Amino acid sequence: MSASPGAPEFADSYLVEVLSEFGLALKYVRAEGNTLHYLADDGSEVGVFDAASGFGSLMFGHNNPELVEHAKWLLDQQTPVHAQFSGYSYALDLAAKLNEIIRRELKTDDKFYGLFGNSGAEAVEITIKHAELDRGMRIKELKEGIEANVEAARSAIAGGARVSEAAAGLAGGADFDRLVAEVRRRNAETEARPPLFLALEGGFHGKLVSSVQLTFNEEFRGPFKALAAQARFIPRDRPEMIEKVVEEERAALLDVVVQDGVVDLVERDFPVFAAFLVEPILGEAGIFPISRELARALREACDRIGVPLVSDEIQSGMGRSGTFLAGTQIDLKPDYIILAKALGGGLAKLGVVLVNEHRYRKDFELMHTSTFGRDGFSSRLALKFLEMLEADGGKAYQLAAERGAKAVAMMEAIKADYPDVVKEVRGKGLMLGFELHDQSKSADPEIREAVEYEALAFVIGGHLLRKHRIRIFSTASNLETMRFEPSIHLSDEELAQVDAGFRDVCRILRDQDASKFA
Amino acid sequence: MSASPGAPEFADSYLVEVLSEFGLALKYVRAEGNTLHYLADDGSEVGVFDAASGFGSLMFGHNNPELVEHAKWLLDQQTPVHAQFSGYSYALDLAAKLNEIIRRELKTDDKFYGLFGNSGAEAVEITIKHAELDRGMRIKELKEGIEANVEAARSAIAGGARVSEAAAGLAGGADFDRLVAEVRRRNAETEARPPLFLALEGGFHGKLVSSVQLTFNEEFRGPFKALAAQARFIPRDRPEMIEKVVEEERAALLDVVVQDGVVDLVERDFPVFAAFLVEPILGEAGIFPISRELARALREACDRIGVPLVSDEIQSGMGRSGTFLAGTQIDLKPDYIILAKALGGGLAKLGVVLVNEHRYRKDFELMHTSTFGRDGFSSRLALKFLEMLEADGGKAYQLAAERGAKAVAMMEAIKADYPDVVKEVRGKGLMLGFELHDQSKSADPEIREAVEYEALAFVIGGHLLRKHRIRIFSTASNLETMRFEPSIHLSDEELAQVDAGFRDVCRILRDQDASKFA
Repeated sequence: MSASPGAPEFADSYLVEVLSEFGLALKYVRAEGNTLHYLADDGSEVGVFDAASGFGSLMFGHNNPELVEHAKWLLDQQTPVHAQFSGYSYALDLAAKLNEIIRRELKTDDKFYGLFGNSGAEAVEITIKHAELDRGMRIKELKEGIEANVEAARSAIAGGARVSEAAAGLAGGADFDRLVAEVRRRNAETEARPPLFLALEGGFHGKLVSSVQLTFNEEFRGPFKALAAQARFIPRDRPEMIEKVVEEERAALLDVVVQDGVVDLVERDFPVFAAFLVEPILGEAGIFPISRELARALREACDRIGVPLVSDEIQSGMGRSGTFLAGTQIDLKPDYIILAKALGGGLAKLGVVLVNEHRYRKDFELMHTSTFGRDGFSSRLALKFLEMLEADGGKAYQLAAERGAKAVAMMEAIKADYPDVVKEVRGKGLMLGFELHDQSKSADPEIREAVEYEALAFVIGGHLLRKHRIRIFSTASNLETMRFEPSIHLSDEELAQVDAGFRDVCRILRDQDASKFA
Repeated sequence: MSASPGAPEFADSYLVEVLSEFGLALKYVRAEGNTLHYLADDGSEVGVFDAASGFGSLMFGHNNPELVEHAKWLLDQQTPVHAQFSGYSYALDLAAKLNEIIRRELKTDDKFYGLFGNSGAEAVEITIKHAELDRGMRIKELKEGIEANVEAARSAIAGGARVSEAAAGLAGGADFDRLVAEVRRRNAETEARPPLFLALEGGFHGKLVSSVQLTFNEEFRGPFKALAAQARFIPRDRPEMIEKVVEEERAALLDVVVQDGVVDLVERDFPVFAAFLVEPILGEAGIFPISRELARALREACDRIGVPLVSDEIQSGMGRSGTFLAGTQIDLKPDYIILAKALGGGLAKLGVVLVNEHRYRKDFELMHTSTFGRDGFSSRLALKFLEMLEADGGKAYQLAAERGAKAVAMMEAIKADYPDVVKEVRGKGLMLGFELHDQSKSADPEIREAVEYEALAFVIGGHLLRKHRIRIFSTASNLETMRFEPSIHLSDEELAQVDAGFRDVCRILRDQDASKFA
């Protein structure tokens, strides 16, 4: 058993090459609280403050002692990991506890049924499948209604009714059977269209084959476009665009009606869209909380279109924003909620989709299975995590809000001192973004070049790591925004460390002198 | 913390309802070796022999003490779970160890680069993405070649060459620019086609949105068809069908050539297919090992078509068949190998795709990321699992083969006694199928009805559970085949227990008397 990670001979060789250029390829061998320890060349351990925190996966920090003890206890208890298809899994307890929390936050008595996967991306894939099953069943109901109307019209024809001129024109004749054949042919053509999804520009919903098509960033999505159903993306500041997109994509099925002895054709709206996915705080886009107005507009649009509104709280949820769901603070009323990342307490892997009973299709339970899903270990560990979140009247939520406010104050003070360098401080609780002004006009050619190669965040990250022992990244799709998502146990000392590091970076950028980067 | 799984109020209510009908909805609360313990109504624990074994995930049994100790040690060591984008992850050690094993088995010095996910299904999704990236890069190279030829032809035209009559016919005129525009238009049309995958009839490759489209079973796949790229399925006993399917789907890009002062058009094969996926032992199809002849035919076909051959060893791999890869025994030479299930030692969740260096696209490393992927906990636990597999000169592989042979002998003896009930015993090592004859003509209406509702395997499973304390399922797509995949620590007592249970079932089916089911 090697004590430290080995050479990138059989994986990640290119990634390590790229990260090495910026001094970011390190051997992290131990983690606790907000600290990751790497192995230095002399064999000693060096601790760094981890502002990335597993992209927001660590509410209580790395290897939280209480969660570690619980994980070990679960192992000692010989908790079943593999007991598939046994009905009563520990995931049921987790679903119950999640319902208790989200029903309180959403102020509803509606039930939310839990569907389980092994990661956030898997939970998004499950969402896509469930939404498509739902759409398929809505189409089936629509078609059954049309077929019933066809039979009613057939009886009417037998009783002396006639085909309208307009309908005869479409079918190329007044023959009823011919009309029905044409209706079915046209309807089959419409039904063959792949579904569309709606999502926000800048949104991030994972990187598996289908989920990545709901992720806005073209670099992640583009090469895989031919593989899966597509999304139409809406700018978050222009909800009125939804109506336009819906209009552009509108499709209808033909139905027959009989009125006053005449068989005529009418159009029925075809369910083109399967779901609308939204992050209450857009993470990879640069930590942009969506507005209360957008939350309301999304709800109204989804009601109008008849599609489920899916809140992707994979990163923003589990208390990081100061409430269990970030959407709670803007009164977002989703039909589905997706959770993952922090839910496993920073130790276990799982993802959950919670579907409102009014949009739930129980048939899905027999169609979708997963060997690792619903396992006892991750379910019970997640339950323990939720108990810790909810303990002491929700002290963890309060801490996320309080420590976050302190971090915002620190960053705003830097912005006040460096308004030429810092553009904006954004976010809620401990999901924060520290956005720098565009540096592409810097007097230093090295800085300009870094911007050109989309590498300035890596350069800054490398400097903060070497000089200030801070591990930090930009968001994936907004490279000017540094993400700050430590655990709720963020100390004043750690804040001071970040303050010093950020100020140092601001000074270098103001001085336009990359030679000062460590 | 509840001691046992709760009520299905917020998840799985339909699933529990269905399983309850057959007495299969139980509260499993403890697991060790080949035994799962459920909580009886009186609060006592009842142990059952688990032939399902996490659908083959448990080579060393539930909660193997050595692996549990190692998991606890990893927790005590504060192994980092979340250290994304740090370059040197423990997954590198795992990739190196996997290379050592598979290069030995495949008798090659080629490197296999590891790509990491959190489940078998995720690993298949990663496979699909990587294969599509590869296809896209092959298309790009092809197009660059065509564009270079267009420029060469343009120079030739400037130097006095002329457009051939055939080419002029296609373009609607002898004008070179018009010809080029028509070539580009037609090529763009061809390029817009979604890719196709090849897979075997009966194959199972997971249930996420895209992977499920490579899974043959129409019940799992059909409702989600509109969501993702499709597969063409080949019967495993008719490899000559590959040629026919390839012919049916053939597409070409137009290229220009200049010969003897004449610009003419030629066709270049367009990469329609992205990959060919195969399970060396088809699991959910009913545990069918593929033949050495098919393995050779697949390799030849993939070389001819130019697509990677992907061996899905998610269930068959990790030693269950008697060798690390089941494909080794039939000399299967894959370009990609997919591993999951047992790889996490029955405790951790992970999936890995190993891609031969000659088909590897390093750009993928910067495109595909996963929060939970490559984590230290699962990587180091998998490494420990591999060390246990390889210990004592590969005693675990030997045990899988030996215990499997003993199980086969037991089942073959039952077949000899009940040739009217048992159709076939199949499989390799401890991945075995016990196939019953079709019971739809049984004299007992209850048995006939169970067959009609696809529930006979559940009825048999319920009987074996209640009367013989054996947990067993059929394969997912072949409901006459009971799957037998216990750990290598299968004891003679456990075998005798299964022997008695299977014989009891055979007697009841021979007697055509469902009233004898417990």
